[in-house]
Amino acid sequence: MSSVAVIGLGLIGGSLLRALAGPAVGYDADPQVRAAARAAGFVVADTLNGAIAERDVVVVATPIPAVGPVFDAIAASARPDTIVTDVASVKAPVRGLAARALPGLRYVGGHPMAGTERSGWQAADPALFGGAAWVLCLEPDTDVAAWGEIASIVLGLGARVVPATAVEHDDAVARVSHLPHLFAAVLAAGVASRPLARTLAAGSFRDATRVASTRAELTIAMCTANTEALAPVIDAAVRRVSRAGSGDAGAAAALIESGHRARAAMDSAPRPAHRSIAAGDRDGLLALGRDGGWLVARVHTGWLGHLGPPWQHPRTEG
Amino acid sequence: MSSVAVIGLGLIGGSLLRALAGPAVGYDADPQVRAAARAAGFVVADTLNGAIAERDVVVVATPIPAVGPVFDAIAASARPDTIVTDVASVKAPVRGLAARALPGLRYVGGHPMAGTERSGWQAADPALFGGAAWVLCLEPDTDVAAWGEIASIVLGLGARVVPATAVEHDDAVARVSHLPHLFAAVLAAGVASRPLARTLAAGSFRDATRVASTRAELTIAMCTANTEALAPVIDAAVRRVSRAGSGDAGAAAALIESGHRARAAMDSAPRPAHRSIAAGDRDGLLALGRDGGWLVARVHTGWLGHLGPPWQHPRTEG
Repeated sequence: MSSVAVIGLGLIGGSLLRALAGPAVGYDADPQVRAAARAAGFVVADTLNGAIAERDVVVVATPIPAVGPVFDAIAASARPDTIVTDVASVKAPVRGLAARALPGLRYVGGHPMAGTERSGWQAADPALFGGAAWVLCLEPDTDVAAWGEIASIVLGLGARVVPATAVEHDDAVARVSHLPHLFAAVLAAGVASRPLARTLAAGSFRDATRVASTRAELTIAMCTANTEALAPVIDAAVRRVSRAGSGDAGAAAALIESGHRARAAMDSAPRPAHRSIAAGDRDGLLALGRDGGWLVARVHTGWLGHLGPPWQHPRTEG
Repeated sequence: MSSVAVIGLGLIGGSLLRALAGPAVGYDADPQVRAAARAAGFVVADTLNGAIAERDVVVVATPIPAVGPVFDAIAASARPDTIVTDVASVKAPVRGLAARALPGLRYVGGHPMAGTERSGWQAADPALFGGAAWVLCLEPDTDVAAWGEIASIVLGLGARVVPATAVEHDDAVARVSHLPHLFAAVLAAGVASRPLARTLAAGSFRDATRVASTRAELTIAMCTANTEALAPVIDAAVRRVSRAGSGDAGAAAALIESGHRARAAMDSAPRPAHRSIAAGDRDGLLALGRDGGWLVARVHTGWLGHLGPPWQHPRTEG
């Protein structure tokens, strides 16, 4: 069983430390968090280097601005065969950091789509990942054996492993998370100092603006870190909405109809199916992710993939 | 007790016919709907003119394209003192129709913010309006006694009467309903043929796109009818989102922070308060609506208004 270090014990890292079955050590830059984790019975290192040294796997679960410095520490202190993964909500920028800081190490980018509304060690929950989609990035230069090690750990947490490239991931989260956050913000801001509009707002407006309740600094960090993938997604979306509002009734109808069809397709998802994929079949794994599937188990021949409705999982927040 | 005719027995008109306590007659252009309403024990006229003649109040609850022709029929067949109201989701355009077709009659524009997902007589429910916001338009040329008659009927249905001008109403619904529908459509359309994105979509994306499930023709009719008020609202919103996506991190942060503040303000609403308003106090009634309030009762001096949190009502769909 791999020995795992978890760096950063906020909601995701803390939940991970609580959920990991094997030997795991945690570390957080905040001494109070280290003390709390220790008081809860977990093994916690006193220093970052102490946490990193001699681990099979290091999971970097810090806020994005700290990821680069932690990668540098790993490059300085980790064993050469250590596998490094992270949980940041954007993947291409972190891949860039890893390529620069960890050229000799085995890096696998990851993003568990779990939990944004609460934060901190206090909110950590070992059941957080049950049913959650957890993207693991598979690039041409990814060590596929290292990828498999991380995938096995993630499956052990009850999560669904979604193989994707960093670019595919960043485009997808721009569409399903970052643009919705910006839309929610502008909708909510549109009724500020308009009590009449607030009175007429219904449950649908509450739903449409719910993510504007997320702590602003988290949303800002998430959206600005993904600017490169987000910008073209914003651009295409606002062009469509603008055209629909320009008095072009055909454009409005086309937009509304295509949205309705797409939403209906999400609710009437494909018949569940399984797909076997060989352990080293990079293209097969990426095809599964592109087709909307995920891994559910490691089997002796490799992986068992699953395709099915996206909605039927208790937690896929991201 | 006023005798009321309800023209159009879909979700809103049918619910109204079921909910009205006094003598009421219904009419629908569809003979099958007339038969169904009659079979359910309601008085249903065989002709539009028969329904309209000799009524104190006529409620026009047809789809928007039929409102103009029904107004023409009312002008031809109704008593000169008949009060006419409607339930259309846009008010300035219908006010224009009424000014042209009903110059001698007393018209009060109305919009119950209730129910969009189901439709038709089969879905009609006398409890539909309980707690719902029901805008009644008060313009400089509105007969304030006629307005009071309609307000009393609406209060009798358990709804909250929100006084507003047609222009104020149309701006408010553009912000809380029509723009959210367009955003939901473009978000949903953005993941069409992208199964990976759908897999990563979470409950928040489902919430953000829920209204894209509404029947497309209803959304199209609603949004295109309100083009005049919607266009500037769309324009301002897309400019803010575009600026946030243009790489201007300050603009993104400002948008996200203002959205967060506005959403928090909706959840932490003002302390409930009451306000008494004289029956003929047009400005006082409109001020109540602008301040986010609504009427809860007719009292001997006029009206009792209420101000409070917008969220605490079971049904304010629109």
